Amino acid sequence: MQQLYVIKIGGNIIDNPDALATFLEDFAKIKQAKILIHGGGKIATQLAEKLGIETKMVDGRRITDQDTIDVVTMVYAGLINKKIVAKLQSIGSNALGICGADGQSVLAEKRPVKDIDYGFVGDIKEVNVHNLQKLIDAEFELVVAPITTNITGQLLNTNADTMAAALASALANIYEVQLLYCFEKPGVLRHANDDHSVITHINTALYEQLKANDSVNMGMIPKLDNAFMASRNGVKKVYICHAKNLESIFNNTPIATLIQN
Amino acid sequence: MQQLYVIKIGGNIIDNPDALATFLEDFAKIKQAKILIHGGGKIATQLAEKLGIETKMVDGRRITDQDTIDVVTMVYAGLINKKIVAKLQSIGSNALGICGADGQSVLAEKRPVKDIDYGFVGDIKEVNVHNLQKLIDAEFELVVAPITTNITGQLLNTNADTMAAALASALANIYEVQLLYCFEKPGVLRHANDDHSVITHINTALYEQLKANDSVNMGMIPKLDNAFMASRNGVKKVYICHAKNLESIFNNTPIATLIQN
Repeated sequence: MQQLYVIKIGGNIIDNPDALATFLEDFAKIKQAKILIHGGGKIATQLAEKLGIETKMVDGRRITDQDTIDVVTMVYAGLINKKIVAKLQSIGSNALGICGADGQSVLAEKRPVKDIDYGFVGDIKEVNVHNLQKLIDAEFELVVAPITTNITGQLLNTNADTMAAALASALANIYEVQLLYCFEKPGVLRHANDDHSVITHINTALYEQLKANDSVNMGMIPKLDNAFMASRNGVKKVYICHAKNLESIFNNTPIATLIQN
Repeated sequence: MQQLYVIKIGGNIIDNPDALATFLEDFAKIKQAKILIHGGGKIATQLAEKLGIETKMVDGRRITDQDTIDVVTMVYAGLINKKIVAKLQSIGSNALGICGADGQSVLAEKRPVKDIDYGFVGDIKEVNVHNLQKLIDAEFELVVAPITTNITGQLLNTNADTMAAALASALANIYEVQLLYCFEKPGVLRHANDDHSVITHINTALYEQLKANDSVNMGMIPKLDNAFMASRNGVKKVYICHAKNLESIFNNTPIATLIQN
């Protein structure tokens, strides 16, 4: 089976031009087939503010009204995606930018309204493995923005961590996939403020124990849930690491948290 | 040789939701391989206004400063491109949205400064036929935004008519290409205000005569220059037609102006 790396970078890296440039250089050097998934960072919020669009958050989640889905589509699938693609092309990566609408590669449905109407937020229904495989096998390095579409062509805002886990899971039937979550911390920390307290390996039993003891930063739980979901779905290894430590994974000296069932 | 249609739609169609929906339905029905190139319409100008970015025009051409290239990248390669792609996917077209940066499919260079500095405006240097062919042969229907990149990864704003002609010309070595410019008039008009005065066929001799007599609307000249350029470069037929008359070309009853050397 061909190796494929699915790599997600967080918003804090995108917001820092130097960190992003370094990360892209490291990404371009990876010899194996690879996909980059990016979040949006602060640019979407800043643009919404400038346009007088109120950012509504409920329980830390953005409510996506019509104006907001337009803004995130512009910023994620337009500005950030194309800047990353153009930069990667200039340093030898045959980057091709897509979002979930392209090739209907990630089909979603609007999140059902229960207590809260999240608006144009998409829960992933299906990954179009056939179209993605055609692009990967044609030696394009996909750069994926977390915008999806439903069956009628409505664009939807989808969580980038979830998108990365869904893509990695779906492609694990065809490729030997590793999933890397790169962000601004060196891994899952035992003590939130101590960067030297990286937990090097988390399995399901330890995860349950950490959650029971409130030892995991709340913000890490959705990321870890996505990581375990991918691991259960056949992704060979899932790492959570600092973006600047990307190379350590490929040098077999990982500075990272490895998530495995 | 396989047939390929390169179809450009103008901004006035994009600005009209009903006209755009009808056009996309007609586009999706075309059985041959096809590429859609879209301009931006008024949305970029409106967004720039809302953001307080001054639109500077010199001789009818937009000066593209740093803020403006960000806006057009967001609007053209993000909002408009992905809305079109999502809609086409929902009606049976395997649409994939790209700009010139993706797969470095259209490499450009910043227009040299002579009397006027146009800013981040790109003149096309090279079309990456190899990458485009891989996408076309994988049965993707490309939707192309007129944003390009230079060799160092700087995004550039490129005229959509020129982009369509360059893509059609470059692909004419591999496919039997027809280029269609679809806009809000039924063709090149002998009398600017009379939609019944469509000139059905223009060759080089007639074009020179029309220009000498001031019989061509000045705004049509760049479009016609692009059309003749494509024709000289091996594009089999070039049509200029109303977007609503797209089907007439495929029914062999063209309501259009045919441009041929």
